[in-house]
Amino acid sequence: MAARNVLTLCKEELVNFINSFDVVLSDCDGVLWLEKEAISGSPEVVKRLKEIGKKFFYVTNNNTKTRAQFVEKCQDLKYEAKLDEVMCTSYLAATYLKEKNFSQKVYIVGTSGIAEELEAVGIDYIGLGPDPVITDSAEMVRDFKPDPTVGAVVVGFDEQISYAKIFKAATYVQDPNVHFIGTNCDNQRPSPNSNISPGSGCMLRVIEAASNRKAVLLGKPEPYISQILISKYGLDPVRTLMIGDKGDTDILLGKRCGFKTLLVLSGVTTLKDVERWKNSDSSEERDLVPDYYINQLSDLLPMLSTF
Amino acid sequence: MAARNVLTLCKEELVNFINSFDVVLSDCDGVLWLEKEAISGSPEVVKRLKEIGKKFFYVTNNNTKTRAQFVEKCQDLKYEAKLDEVMCTSYLAATYLKEKNFSQKVYIVGTSGIAEELEAVGIDYIGLGPDPVITDSAEMVRDFKPDPTVGAVVVGFDEQISYAKIFKAATYVQDPNVHFIGTNCDNQRPSPNSNISPGSGCMLRVIEAASNRKAVLLGKPEPYISQILISKYGLDPVRTLMIGDKGDTDILLGKRCGFKTLLVLSGVTTLKDVERWKNSDSSEERDLVPDYYINQLSDLLPMLSTF
Repeated sequence: MAARNVLTLCKEELVNFINSFDVVLSDCDGVLWLEKEAISGSPEVVKRLKEIGKKFFYVTNNNTKTRAQFVEKCQDLKYEAKLDEVMCTSYLAATYLKEKNFSQKVYIVGTSGIAEELEAVGIDYIGLGPDPVITDSAEMVRDFKPDPTVGAVVVGFDEQISYAKIFKAATYVQDPNVHFIGTNCDNQRPSPNSNISPGSGCMLRVIEAASNRKAVLLGKPEPYISQILISKYGLDPVRTLMIGDKGDTDILLGKRCGFKTLLVLSGVTTLKDVERWKNSDSSEERDLVPDYYINQLSDLLPMLSTF
Repeated sequence: MAARNVLTLCKEELVNFINSFDVVLSDCDGVLWLEKEAISGSPEVVKRLKEIGKKFFYVTNNNTKTRAQFVEKCQDLKYEAKLDEVMCTSYLAATYLKEKNFSQKVYIVGTSGIAEELEAVGIDYIGLGPDPVITDSAEMVRDFKPDPTVGAVVVGFDEQISYAKIFKAATYVQDPNVHFIGTNCDNQRPSPNSNISPGSGCMLRVIEAASNRKAVLLGKPEPYISQILISKYGLDPVRTLMIGDKGDTDILLGKRCGFKTLLVLSGVTTLKDVERWKNSDSSEERDLVPDYYINQLSDLLPMLSTF
């Protein structure tokens, strides 16, 4: 079974589908909202899923906010959300280091979202904000004394990315004992026009290139999120549904973790993409094909009314 | 024949080797000098090669200087050099566009080296120097109006690399009609200590990631340099020797272009690297093995005295 339109399921298939999961992981931007506006009807679907007993998690690759800030954003857009229901990658980075009993300092290429999540678990950091404008990079390379207490570099989205930051991060991670963590590898952020909005993946790729080392990735489609949910909440992958608008993050995460997958067409991936992937010779591309798809989340609402 | 130590050649083999080429292309940093100091004995070898009738070219992936500035540096370090003997990648970028009768504007991610070479062939440019510090990248993405006269993006080394530059370059090159040119792809520059000095390849990789487009590369090991030398000077590849200190740029260029190759061990690549590549299962790694090697260029001097 691959890429079935939920609207074409017969009554029995639909009941089986809804009964096949206890937990819903949902991507946010493109499914629940578009930037600062809720997608019409999505809040009602989330509410209804919870009413019929599904456990719901907000799963986002965004690392510029804390979980608390996401809860606020959810509430502003009429989604009920609790701290424990939010899985953002700033939180994943802090959780990853905490699990390793990390007690050194983090060099952050990123924003206060990461810094505050680290603070919340008692981990110290440096690197936030713009570095001074460089007048002589050779001099900087010559004179820089790495902080010996730095034991990890966390790279997320940083609009203050600079030669100094690339240089410092690469210099730190050349020590194999220093953790090298990428929150996520999305190269582009949603853009309101035809201009390209470079994403966290760009900051990561440049530091990987400079250091000739690959980072450990935490966000979708990496399965780390599933490991946390299993250990913290006893998640059962086969009783879990992943909802998202992107094949190469949301759906691929679901495939890798053994979740059921539902693609909504209100975001990035189109039905044409899905058709191409279905017929691809590459097993990697076929892994992007969801089990189900639907135009928008709100199309689920009438189906949920009888549960 | 692969990776023979020139010092172990018998007299007849040595004569055959020296007589087998009319043209020498030599890398600079690591062969002729280390940063700002000439490598002892190298100037004499270059002088002697010219005296016995070899045509000599200085071939460097550096893009921060113009050809004229390289001539000056050569002279400072006791190398005789004429403008036409210098092949730096700032010059290659200008030549590439000029050959295409390019008459639009270039957006430069790089330094005055590229700008002045463009100027020299009458090509206009923008982008040089630091952008203002960003306070809101989303606003910048929303408000930026691309200059419609930009028809090429040239990426070299830029210590002022920033989110604004990455964003603008990526936005320009998403138009497939806009040339996207990388001077070279060296991810690291020589560093005087254990700190990493990120190179031009880093600036290129981040813009490639942001735009999801690969640049046309001009510097070593890309064969463009050979095309220029063939069309301008009637270079005969089989009568050409490439000298360098790096397997993955200098020697690979030679292999790709059908030159003879001589590795000097006074720079980056070690004999251990060569041994590993010789025994590698990967044909790509075996392509990094030089025909000949020598500890330092000056070891050639006694051998050249009888010619």
